[in-house]
Amino acid sequence: MRNVAVIGAGSWGTALATVLAENHENVSLWARREELAREINETRENKRYLPGITLSERIKGDTSLERAVRDKELVVLVVPSHAMRDTVRTLAPHLHKDTILVHAAKGLEIDSLKRMSEVIKEEVSASFHEQIAVLSGPSHAEEVGMKAPTTVVVAAEKMSVAEEVQDAFITSRFRVYTNPDVIGVEIGGALKNIIALGAGVSDGLEFGDNAKAALLTRGLAEISRLGIKLGANPLTFTGLAGVGDLVVTATSQHSRNWRAGRMLAQGLAPDEIVARMGMVVEGIKTTKAAHQLACELGVEMPITRELHALLFRQKAPRDAVSDLMGRVRRHETEELALQYFDNH
Amino acid sequence: MRNVAVIGAGSWGTALATVLAENHENVSLWARREELAREINETRENKRYLPGITLSERIKGDTSLERAVRDKELVVLVVPSHAMRDTVRTLAPHLHKDTILVHAAKGLEIDSLKRMSEVIKEEVSASFHEQIAVLSGPSHAEEVGMKAPTTVVVAAEKMSVAEEVQDAFITSRFRVYTNPDVIGVEIGGALKNIIALGAGVSDGLEFGDNAKAALLTRGLAEISRLGIKLGANPLTFTGLAGVGDLVVTATSQHSRNWRAGRMLAQGLAPDEIVARMGMVVEGIKTTKAAHQLACELGVEMPITRELHALLFRQKAPRDAVSDLMGRVRRHETEELALQYFDNH
Repeated sequence: MRNVAVIGAGSWGTALATVLAENHENVSLWARREELAREINETRENKRYLPGITLSERIKGDTSLERAVRDKELVVLVVPSHAMRDTVRTLAPHLHKDTILVHAAKGLEIDSLKRMSEVIKEEVSASFHEQIAVLSGPSHAEEVGMKAPTTVVVAAEKMSVAEEVQDAFITSRFRVYTNPDVIGVEIGGALKNIIALGAGVSDGLEFGDNAKAALLTRGLAEISRLGIKLGANPLTFTGLAGVGDLVVTATSQHSRNWRAGRMLAQGLAPDEIVARMGMVVEGIKTTKAAHQLACELGVEMPITRELHALLFRQKAPRDAVSDLMGRVRRHETEELALQYFDNH
Repeated sequence: MRNVAVIGAGSWGTALATVLAENHENVSLWARREELAREINETRENKRYLPGITLSERIKGDTSLERAVRDKELVVLVVPSHAMRDTVRTLAPHLHKDTILVHAAKGLEIDSLKRMSEVIKEEVSASFHEQIAVLSGPSHAEEVGMKAPTTVVVAAEKMSVAEEVQDAFITSRFRVYTNPDVIGVEIGGALKNIIALGAGVSDGLEFGDNAKAALLTRGLAEISRLGIKLGANPLTFTGLAGVGDLVVTATSQHSRNWRAGRMLAQGLAPDEIVARMGMVVEGIKTTKAAHQLACELGVEMPITRELHALLFRQKAPRDAVSDLMGRVRRHETEELALQYFDNH
């Protein structure tokens, strides 16, 4: 492969472009804003989203979706999940028939409650359906930009597609595993943001590391429950896109969702938080979508339910967390068995 | 229950005594050293191991094992794993026939490679065998002392025994789940210290959060592999004694094993580290025991193997970690399936 494109020049898109530039001669990096594309090309830096990282000459900022995707072997979609449908619709007519589409967005579509690969499928012609993959796993953009060792997973229905994406990304510092479980990888990536928000609330209330570990454990159980109900392989949640991504998002200060949770604990409203961060907080939208999915499918998701009440129904953070802690006592195995078997 | 004893006045034993004092009138807290027992009784504080926490008048420091366990309904064993056998041997003749024995030690016996409940069984008469339980989970002693919300798991072969222990410990801030899987709970608790050491090495080398998350994910897989081979329920490792305890130990600055790993990364020898910390570092001994178990049982445990080489065969920390990262690429599902199925 020589020619690839990354659609979306936020932190993660820019970091992935730096990885691709190690293996490819031409990496188009599409940015919505003209100034950003120009900054990338003129200063070799994306100061707002990935400050301090020098971008290879192989990376070319561009604001034309049509030009960015033209004749590319691989197109990596890294736009926020709410922008995925429109973006794919706009670029679809310009795709070469052999182009592989891989997305690295971690969210669900609001209202439709669809996963990103489902959204992409609906916006491209059927001939592309087997050429869609998802990249996920524990990966702060800042660290990838600095070439810190990172391990991710790529899932596609067709193993040969996942392996092509693996080849495109793999470097000595960026290890890529494949996994055929698209549903599990997408659900793990999207829902961990909810638990990271919750971990931020818990930390903001100074509940401590013991409480946070309990929250992560129970969070993993409820992510698995929903995923399995949707058809995921339970093992995926014990892997990089499950436990791995959950841990890194919920325990690291780099995490946007965790920081948003801390602000929630201080009593800030969701709108104020998004305004202050100046970036998308996927966990807020995902909480809404996952809460609705859980209701429709009859899956028990107590952490998601309490965060939903906190975000959208003015429940006090302290009440939400104590309602979580104060549930009736139970045998752990019942709870864990529920995770894997009760919803089948 | 009114009369209980905690054997071992280190951080965790003292913290558990504070929890028991909420539910029991008399909590004997056995300390090996006379000065420590006196300090507890005279100053109501264990300055060295749990500074800043005022100990209830219900807690009585004692240096006589015989007196401490006499006529107790519950005896909680919180000595280091290498001291468990001798301690139980000494106190066994003085136990009341109905006493429940619960241990909260996280390690394996060196050379015999036995779990703590196996060691205890060998040192008490057969009539006690069904009265043995283990308490584990994500629980820094400092936070439990400060009454931060904490969730743990108690496992026993007989559910009624686990439930009695649950009743003894449960408070509004200390939530206790039961689990019948003694093997899984003991293996999870012991082996997470190895991964915490590894996480400390990774952090000491400044590999970053992405690398640490990958290490935890693969660490959980290798703990599960060994546990399943020994007869544990795979689900236990997705619960509090598995993921939960692993996360809190490997990501929190309170963790002794994590701090020891950081010192390893700086090139300190294991002996120097133990001398500097002035406390037992269970992970060092456990690495030796688990490495031997893995060899004998034919279980693949790459993180344990590299740490063993680092601790006992003078391998350079950086080489150990890059040998871990640089393994041949693979499909994640193969690795995860291996975790659950290949060793049966």
